Amino acid sequence: MPTLRYDVIGIGNAIVDVLARADDNFLVKQGMAKGGMALIDQPRAEAIYEAMGPAVEISGGSAANTIVGVASLGARGAFVGKVKDDEFGHTFAHDIRAAGVEFSTPPASDGPATARCYIMVTPDGERTMNTYLGAAQDLHPNDIDPDAIAAAQITYLEGYLWDPPHAKEAFLKAATIAHGAGRRVALTLSDAFCVDRYRAEFLGLLRNGTVDVVFANERELHSLYQTADFETAVNAVRNDAKLAVVTRSEQGSLVVTREQNDAVRAEPVDRVIDATGAGDLFAAGFLVGLARGVDHRNCARLGALAAAEVIQHMGARPESSLKELVEAAGFAL
Amino acid sequence: MPTLRYDVIGIGNAIVDVLARADDNFLVKQGMAKGGMALIDQPRAEAIYEAMGPAVEISGGSAANTIVGVASLGARGAFVGKVKDDEFGHTFAHDIRAAGVEFSTPPASDGPATARCYIMVTPDGERTMNTYLGAAQDLHPNDIDPDAIAAAQITYLEGYLWDPPHAKEAFLKAATIAHGAGRRVALTLSDAFCVDRYRAEFLGLLRNGTVDVVFANERELHSLYQTADFETAVNAVRNDAKLAVVTRSEQGSLVVTREQNDAVRAEPVDRVIDATGAGDLFAAGFLVGLARGVDHRNCARLGALAAAEVIQHMGARPESSLKELVEAAGFAL
Repeated sequence: MPTLRYDVIGIGNAIVDVLARADDNFLVKQGMAKGGMALIDQPRAEAIYEAMGPAVEISGGSAANTIVGVASLGARGAFVGKVKDDEFGHTFAHDIRAAGVEFSTPPASDGPATARCYIMVTPDGERTMNTYLGAAQDLHPNDIDPDAIAAAQITYLEGYLWDPPHAKEAFLKAATIAHGAGRRVALTLSDAFCVDRYRAEFLGLLRNGTVDVVFANERELHSLYQTADFETAVNAVRNDAKLAVVTRSEQGSLVVTREQNDAVRAEPVDRVIDATGAGDLFAAGFLVGLARGVDHRNCARLGALAAAEVIQHMGARPESSLKELVEAAGFAL
Repeated sequence: MPTLRYDVIGIGNAIVDVLARADDNFLVKQGMAKGGMALIDQPRAEAIYEAMGPAVEISGGSAANTIVGVASLGARGAFVGKVKDDEFGHTFAHDIRAAGVEFSTPPASDGPATARCYIMVTPDGERTMNTYLGAAQDLHPNDIDPDAIAAAQITYLEGYLWDPPHAKEAFLKAATIAHGAGRRVALTLSDAFCVDRYRAEFLGLLRNGTVDVVFANERELHSLYQTADFETAVNAVRNDAKLAVVTRSEQGSLVVTREQNDAVRAEPVDRVIDATGAGDLFAAGFLVGLARGVDHRNCARLGALAAAEVIQHMGARPESSLKELVEAAGFAL
């Protein structure tokens, strides 16, 4: 096996989040599906930005947030994703590197601007996202460095990669390299609407063994199996996936294997300020546990601790050291 | 008198803040004076950004923050300041307009990038600032619209305007128009180092009546009169200014006129997360009170309430409605 350099390498859309508070009326007026992620083109991006309130810019992107969480937990992470060589692209690259993540995907020198996600945070802390993919559309199989993939314990992929035209090829290339090197491949289903767009392909990835570990929240799981019944969906994913991790917000998570289901409670928080990044950071905790040989229940505990940190402030990346936080909870990774 | 359109019009450097957490060691290693504002050139800006941690981008600028506070209090505000027609310039313009402030200064189409301020927030909540002035340097007297100034109850100016080459001419032009229209002119001394750079000029502005109301914190007042003794400094400013408002962090504020001193307590807060904008928002509350004919003690109360909101989160602009906040405290503006 090649030398191990990373616990987790993530591949995803490189995005800067533009977060503003909004009320439910705003979502209705703008025709936004609360809690979902919609893909938007540039004119729509401009119209939304024009209509939305004063915002804060924070680097984001689902898999990118996860890898920042991995680094914050004291583990070694790398990220692959495409920005443009513009101001927001510099911001993205600065923030992920400053968080201790290796990021060396070359930026695009022309073409559309760095991707941004306009996020409306409603008073209940729920987030509704509108993504302009921009430069992230140009992620290409050439951006995958085989040595880096082979050097990572786990390759982590976001379902959102199915949206840009060539990113899924990069995804499949990385998965093949990872398995060739004896490593594991994990996937997050990302979003219920995303599942709806690519249901057959996602099921194929689970069933043909391209993906070893799948993360989904309840809505995504229901969408995957087109059922409103949780138990039906859980039984279905047990047959399709080697290891499935289902997150259920304040109800905690369920780790599903062929042998058993493990329900793990959520970490209680005083108040949810902004749910953006909850799933991403749960995945960070779980994956670091998995890479370090922690049992599944404790992997889920690590995920719950990391998620609890990120929902108590604006933005999808940790503001304090997750390593210190999980050590305080008794973990030694 | 021309029709009144604004309670307060602010003129200042249009800046996007780049905020990151840092410890005191970082400040020492980087040679930064804790709590101060240093002007930096582009290479230094790049070096600081390279060295600093993951950041958040939030529109800032001292007078701009104040005017956003004015709007959040339900009063009418306008802002004059120079950005470039680039991504951060668009961000600045979006955020200030989305906050309900009129902002119509044309952006520069070439020249340096939109100004940014690299802000290190230490664990005690204190902020240390490094400003790259960029496009803000190109604010020019032509950017002052005489009708807008004449239509504002109070014209509010930041001492930082003495740094860019032509902004002080814009400042003096605006002050002359305001007084010609029977309005009032207010100035914040901005920063102790800024006072050190322009002490004689600032004293001249107070003594010759260009400025009717001056805002200063203790450090700035001590720097203005080159004394370490608070009483000496207060007695000196009483002779020089018609109305001086001295802010003293958790010790509250002192309103100084020829006739009397009024000490007003600070609004208690659980924990200071980020002191950035405390002085700016204090000025917002005080100025709105002044424009609406509130007595000085209650102007200072309004200032204290607004400042307390902004120090409890990252960034120098209010996250919740200051109007609702001061109404809950018994004010009807």
